[in-house]
Amino acid sequence: MQLGFVSAILPESTLEEVFAAAAEFGYDCVELMCWPQGKAERRYAGVTHLDTARFDQGAAEETLALADRYGVAISGLGYYPNPLSPDAAEAEGAVAQIRSVIAAAAVLGVRRMNTFIGRDWKLSVDDNWPRFLQTWEPIIRFAEEQNVQVGIENCPMLFTDDEWPGGKNLAISPAIWSRMFEAIPSTHFGLNYDPSHMVWQQMDYLQPLVDFADRIFHVHAKDVRVDRRLLDQVGILAKPIEYHTPKLPGLGEVDWGRFCSVLGDSGYTGPVCVEIEDRIYEGSLAARRQALQLSSHYLRNFIPRLPR
Amino acid sequence: MQLGFVSAILPESTLEEVFAAAAEFGYDCVELMCWPQGKAERRYAGVTHLDTARFDQGAAEETLALADRYGVAISGLGYYPNPLSPDAAEAEGAVAQIRSVIAAAAVLGVRRMNTFIGRDWKLSVDDNWPRFLQTWEPIIRFAEEQNVQVGIENCPMLFTDDEWPGGKNLAISPAIWSRMFEAIPSTHFGLNYDPSHMVWQQMDYLQPLVDFADRIFHVHAKDVRVDRRLLDQVGILAKPIEYHTPKLPGLGEVDWGRFCSVLGDSGYTGPVCVEIEDRIYEGSLAARRQALQLSSHYLRNFIPRLPR
Amino acid sequence: MQLGFVSAILPESTLEEVFAAAAEFGYDCVELMCWPQGKAERRYAGVTHLDTARFDQGAAEETLALADRYGVAISGLGYYPNPLSPDAAEAEGAVAQIRSVIAAAAVLGVRRMNTFIGRDWKLSVDDNWPRFLQTWEPIIRFAEEQNVQVGIENCPMLFTDDEWPGGKNLAISPAIWSRMFEAIPSTHFGLNYDPSHMVWQQMDYLQPLVDFADRIFHVHAKDVRVDRRLLDQVGILAKPIEYHTPKLPGLGEVDWGRFCSVLGDSGYTGPVCVEIEDRIYEGSLAARRQALQLSSHYLRNFIPRLPR
Amino acid sequence: MQLGFVSAILPESTLEEVFAAAAEFGYDCVELMCWPQGKAERRYAGVTHLDTARFDQGAAEETLALADRYGVAISGLGYYPNPLSPDAAEAEGAVAQIRSVIAAAAVLGVRRMNTFIGRDWKLSVDDNWPRFLQTWEPIIRFAEEQNVQVGIENCPMLFTDDEWPGGKNLAISPAIWSRMFEAIPSTHFGLNYDPSHMVWQQMDYLQPLVDFADRIFHVHAKDVRVDRRLLDQVGILAKPIEYHTPKLPGLGEVDWGRFCSVLGDSGYTGPVCVEIEDRIYEGSLAARRQALQLSSHYLRNFIPRLPR
Amino acid sequence: MQLGFVSAILPESTLEEVFAAAAEFGYDCVELMCWPQGKAERRYAGVTHLDTARFDQGAAEETLALADRYGVAISGLGYYPNPLSPDAAEAEGAVAQIRSVIAAAAVLGVRRMNTFIGRDWKLSVDDNWPRFLQTWEPIIRFAEEQNVQVGIENCPMLFTDDEWPGGKNLAISPAIWSRMFEAIPSTHFGLNYDPSHMVWQQMDYLQPLVDFADRIFHVHAKDVRVDRRLLDQVGILAKPIEYHTPKLPGLGEVDWGRFCSVLGDSGYTGPVCVEIEDRIYEGSLAARRQALQLSSHYLRNFIPRLPR
Amino acid sequence: MQLGFVSAILPESTLEEVFAAAAEFGYDCVELMCWPQGKAERRYAGVTHLDTARFDQGAAEETLALADRYGVAISGLGYYPNPLSPDAAEAEGAVAQIRSVIAAAAVLGVRRMNTFIGRDWKLSVDDNWPRFLQTWEPIIRFAEEQNVQVGIENCPMLFTDDEWPGGKNLAISPAIWSRMFEAIPSTHFGLNYDPSHMVWQQMDYLQPLVDFADRIFHVHAKDVRVDRRLLDQVGILAKPIEYHTPKLPGLGEVDWGRFCSVLGDSGYTGPVCVEIEDRIYEGSLAARRQALQLSSHYLRNFIPRLPR
Repeated sequence: MQLGFVSAILPESTLEEVFAAAAEFGYDCVELMCWPQGKAERRYAGVTHLDTARFDQGAAEETLALADRYGVAISGLGYYPNPLSPDAAEAEGAVAQIRSVIAAAAVLGVRRMNTFIGRDWKLSVDDNWPRFLQTWEPIIRFAEEQNVQVGIENCPMLFTDDEWPGGKNLAISPAIWSRMFEAIPSTHFGLNYDPSHMVWQQMDYLQPLVDFADRIFHVHAKDVRVDRRLLDQVGILAKPIEYHTPKLPGLGEVDWGRFCSVLGDSGYTGPVCVEIEDRIYEGSLAARRQALQLSSHYLRNFIPRLPR
Repeated sequence: MQLGFVSAILPESTLEEVFAAAAEFGYDCVELMCWPQGKAERRYAGVTHLDTARFDQGAAEETLALADRYGVAISGLGYYPNPLSPDAAEAEGAVAQIRSVIAAAAVLGVRRMNTFIGRDWKLSVDDNWPRFLQTWEPIIRFAEEQNVQVGIENCPMLFTDDEWPGGKNLAISPAIWSRMFEAIPSTHFGLNYDPSHMVWQQMDYLQPLVDFADRIFHVHAKDVRVDRRLLDQVGILAKPIEYHTPKLPGLGEVDWGRFCSVLGDSGYTGPVCVEIEDRIYEGSLAARRQALQLSSHYLRNFIPRLPR
Repeated sequence: MQLGFVSAILPESTLEEVFAAAAEFGYDCVELMCWPQGKAERRYAGVTHLDTARFDQGAAEETLALADRYGVAISGLGYYPNPLSPDAAEAEGAVAQIRSVIAAAAVLGVRRMNTFIGRDWKLSVDDNWPRFLQTWEPIIRFAEEQNVQVGIENCPMLFTDDEWPGGKNLAISPAIWSRMFEAIPSTHFGLNYDPSHMVWQQMDYLQPLVDFADRIFHVHAKDVRVDRRLLDQVGILAKPIEYHTPKLPGLGEVDWGRFCSVLGDSGYTGPVCVEIEDRIYEGSLAARRQALQLSSHYLRNFIPRLPR
Repeated sequence: MQLGFVSAILPESTLEEVFAAAAEFGYDCVELMCWPQGKAERRYAGVTHLDTARFDQGAAEETLALADRYGVAISGLGYYPNPLSPDAAEAEGAVAQIRSVIAAAAVLGVRRMNTFIGRDWKLSVDDNWPRFLQTWEPIIRFAEEQNVQVGIENCPMLFTDDEWPGGKNLAISPAIWSRMFEAIPSTHFGLNYDPSHMVWQQMDYLQPLVDFADRIFHVHAKDVRVDRRLLDQVGILAKPIEYHTPKLPGLGEVDWGRFCSVLGDSGYTGPVCVEIEDRIYEGSLAARRQALQLSSHYLRNFIPRLPR
Repeated sequence: MQLGFVSAILPESTLEEVFAAAAEFGYDCVELMCWPQGKAERRYAGVTHLDTARFDQGAAEETLALADRYGVAISGLGYYPNPLSPDAAEAEGAVAQIRSVIAAAAVLGVRRMNTFIGRDWKLSVDDNWPRFLQTWEPIIRFAEEQNVQVGIENCPMLFTDDEWPGGKNLAISPAIWSRMFEAIPSTHFGLNYDPSHMVWQQMDYLQPLVDFADRIFHVHAKDVRVDRRLLDQVGILAKPIEYHTPKLPGLGEVDWGRFCSVLGDSGYTGPVCVEIEDRIYEGSLAARRQALQLSSHYLRNFIPRLPR
Repeated sequence: MQLGFVSAILPESTLEEVFAAAAEFGYDCVELMCWPQGKAERRYAGVTHLDTARFDQGAAEETLALADRYGVAISGLGYYPNPLSPDAAEAEGAVAQIRSVIAAAAVLGVRRMNTFIGRDWKLSVDDNWPRFLQTWEPIIRFAEEQNVQVGIENCPMLFTDDEWPGGKNLAISPAIWSRMFEAIPSTHFGLNYDPSHMVWQQMDYLQPLVDFADRIFHVHAKDVRVDRRLLDQVGILAKPIEYHTPKLPGLGEVDWGRFCSVLGDSGYTGPVCVEIEDRIYEGSLAARRQALQLSSHYLRNFIPRLPR
């Protein structure tokens, strides 16, 4: 495995500064954010460390050379929109950019692109299904042509009132993943697995490492604390943010030793990228750099520093 | 405490047969269902063991005499509709019948009426709030006049697709109860507390016995089993019925010894009525009678048989 | 479900006395022991409450009439030898008697026969396999012809030095059951499931109720206490009896509420027969009668007394 | 084992009424309180169901005949004072009455007398030791002469401010029992074991059943609930009554199935007497009779009703 | 947060050596011990790294310059006597020195002073209360004038026979803190919170981080192991040291990931100072330096190395 | 304590390379493998980093000088054969080499030699006992003469079919250790304690640190993961490798903080040597070096880096 981080946490940094931070804090790799240029619509979105709109072979070589200079690899390209938005323009834009990022990943030779399935959050899973098939079959066919693995993150995207009740991403549970992979049976369609969402959804976060071993293309290392006293007041039917708090790895309920143990034994040898969404470490660039330093130090207890 | 059962489980029985069954299976009391005459709209609904439409002093005396003949008390009158239904006619009908049941309880001298708050299940709690106030202030004022305690059951009423996402009853958690009781501060407004809904909503079902000690007017004894293997597949954002199963007391996760221990120490001396919604025991009258026998036998481990 | 007991605990009683005890202690049914007449070779063996050697239609009618007189049913016929014994004569005798008991069950119309697979305890499972197939294919074929379900108890039969290391019964775990049922795919080949053996073998005793729902033909209600202080001294590689103690239901680690809950929801409606192997209750007939009284009283918390 | 109760809960009843209650509620035996006639100095004290001051052979025969008439046995004689009180007169009185009760037990042929060691509660265990030896060596010698087993209850007697900090009974833990039994090595010196005190003192209540198997002369069945929320506020250095509540068996934290399981396997065949100190069941004679009915019903899940 | 240590562990070192050790082992800050010059009366007491008797502006500047030279901050000044000692001279001396340390903290600009409330250990909390008020109201008034926060450590100071039964510090539990802060309502009166004392007192050590969020002025990082086998022998009424052992962070039962997680989310941004009282690491200066190295390394898994 | 590793993981490295790796990865010491020159008969066997066949004072001095050059100590000499093999030649060879390694340890001044007792795996413990005595009494007598402590590793050596059912080492549990040490009462006969084997044998791995405190001569730091889903399928009577997986420290179920805490408090001050048998880290020298780096980093959370 290689330890990395998601570049969204350094929105004000240039690509070179991102690579430099990775090297400084002992990371092996980075997942680069590839939002289209423009204004972010929510926290952690809208970051463009690699502009896929104008990404040709030359840009790819420059990018790889820069990474190489800092001894850092690119774990994958990331872009997390809502391709099933009820707003047709938003959905179309998302699909177009997903294709653009897949193409850039192919040019770059990274071969991993991470994103969301999306969802019309006012409809049930079943009612979203026809549009899921219609939208995603062509994307995955394109990814096969480009030989890029598309890893869907398992985040419910259900935080604010605007996302109630269904959230903006269908791919939240093993039951739904199985249904997705049966519906679109491609070896290029898999998961960008984040154990923290399993924790607060009260699911076993270890067994999927076994059951979906050949579908895990990329891993996010985020942690979470479920506050029992809060949950006791509101119950699981409340908005999730009322009872859980995203945290850095080691400051939550994921048992990272056990996680890395099962992940390794399932045959996974890819990147594990820290995703920082801990509000305590978001107030300033200095605080976010602390978060990067701390997460690297902590996870190095379970992921070796030496290259294989 | 007195051990009883909810009469909805014997829809084909006459009132006398209900009292006879209570006596036969060693119950102290019964909560009588008071739906308006007509067709049931869902399981467990539509049962009329006491017809409040034509309930005068004479009917009350007859009813009490009949109960007395079997040595059984009436724990309260129950009717569980959706008074906040988006269908205005349904909501109005529900409110009218609630008032009718309250009036009947007063005539009968039972002084406990149990029901739901209701909810427009497509709207958030906040968006339901104005209508909650508008609907419930007059009902509770009327209950005060009649000197009848209104106990709201804490069931989310979220089982089928038709109830997704919000369910048909607002009163599901301590946070919402507190808000309700602050908004309508009446000593006649309280809870018909069912611990099983707390269990599958992952809330502590004991602490509310302390925190809401003076608000618990009536108790339902239902149990529930949360199936971890199923929950691991679908997570808490799935429809609740995908991962939990209502069961008889003793066949679920409620620790009834602990429950009765804390309930008693909180000063509660009222009825504890078995509510049977266990599909294994629903196939026939014989099976439902088994359920009544079994539940009585089991709960008598924690509630004494002798009258005080 | 029907609550019963295994008649082996009353070796000195006549068949009528067995039925009388069942009635006295509130049991619905009895599993009758059918060892061939002769001397018992180990504890709990050698009991003959129904002699299959001379069992014709007339005997069957008499037996059923006697049961009927006491209002008790026969849950099945039981005989637990080692049909894979390395002693060829013992193995042949066992197979012959198994066939005889199957035939008697058919005559009696009970249609359940319970036994062991057997094992050459000095050989591995793999090394026993060819003989398992050779011995059991004809038996199951015969059972199909007789329309009798053969329920294999999941007891490892590993107690004394003479049974070390493998025990005298192959059918000890879900992995082996699956292999058995694949090798001999018959609807008449199933389990007489005893949760206590799962407990001390450190296996989940609930999940098989789901996974093998259509294979559970009969259930034994035995309990067990694993003594951590003893296990801490010797470990799981020691002889099992060094760290666990068979107990009556309610005096061990099986959660009988949960067990009956999952068993019922898996669709099981058959007999649950108490098997008494608790040394505290074996010293005298009076003590064994205490055990029957206590087990019936305890399990009636989870199994209704009324007939369906 | 025989199920009984401690007669202190029926202070207003005559001896015959005590036996009648035992018979009515299905108890096998009773522990009779033997305080000297006079005024009680604390709750549960001062009850005299058997007046040892004037107890000769004739009185013994009458008592046994009365017990026999109700089919009830006497499990032992009980008297629980402070024989190490700093008030010399109180201590002397206690010792004199202990001897009187021992003598009565001998006359009665019951051969079990239960009491406390006592303590000067303002002194440490060590500082009480010389007086313990001086007081108890003669008592135990006398008990040996009378062939009566003296069972010391393991209650810390630390409830009110007047008992702070040490409580009024030294014999509270395995460490102190070992020291006691080494200091006065007599087969007539043992325990009247009550698991509930172990629970709130945070000690394993099962292992002593094994470690002190030959010292357990009598057992009290009392239960207790430790309230975590209260303990979290005050900690174990607070007065014990601030965080725990004595309860009836089945309404607390003792696992009675496990308790009776280990107790039986340790060779114990004596009485298990319910001691009622649950305030919910103390308000009236009717409530205390409820407690007797409930405790008997509950414990009969683990102790057979039939005589051996 | 800043990671520091309590200087008491280096009694033989000069102030400069203390700062040097902090720098060498990667600490951000140090809590300096300020006992009056003289002989220590117990372990960990009597250390004087900053002599408040002769501490003027010049001394303050020198001290800060020295700290600065090693890149280390001063987290607070510490002095832990018994200001409520029954020995009036001892109590008066303690109060005088507490005032002297508060004054020094003000001169130094550190604004945090840590100490104990004290207690007459032979009296109950209630009996100590009048003297608590009389002693502490003037101290806190003085602290307000000096604008120094006084953090009371929550150590029961109950280890030896000389401290039995009440210990030498009243401020041991949330219940008492609430009472203290209500009695003397000042924003300069708070806690120097050490989770280890909560653990062995069997209290939740996380919830106070939320409930007393605005009262936590300073944190001690000490750990503890409760030995169940020992506790099972002696119970919670024994002297605490009979069943628990103070340990370095990471070698005990505090979950430091969870602790730092909740602490941070409660808004705490102050110092977390390792307090070393682990006998394995006390035998020599070398061993104590090992302890400092190990504790720093371990806690850096949860507290970032970078300055904010 | 000193952190080390077992040299078997570097079979292709010279002794100097082994010392260099220790220094590179921050280890204090190494346990050197001393198999006789020749072909390995199983994984992890057959490694010869110190050839005892030709080991004189000169060789010892060279070896120590080499270790010194890298600042690394030798924790002990290891050789793990089957001295009770049913193959007499194999057993004799093993005994001869054990003596040779003891002699070499004496010459080297290391005074710790680690090995197995051995076992005829087809026989019970009792049936192996006479040969155990006969074989081991002379070995231990020789060890006493050489003043070398012989530490027996507690590995059951039960992995493949060839080792079924008893494994190739008798010394697997506290019960057997006690029997061994009573049979051959020598202060030079003790344990090379590996907690991981306790874990999968379901034994407490902490209590032996207390109970056998004076017998623990050397410690192996290996970890293990027991997979519940696999165990649920096969049970504890299956071959152990069917349900557990050896892992690096921190990737298994051993709580290393608690382990080092109790180990230290038991008075142990010797070596703790990482034993690498994690298949994920075995594929290449690079992977094995990763394992050494990772294990050192992880265990340094609990074992200080500084020399004492």
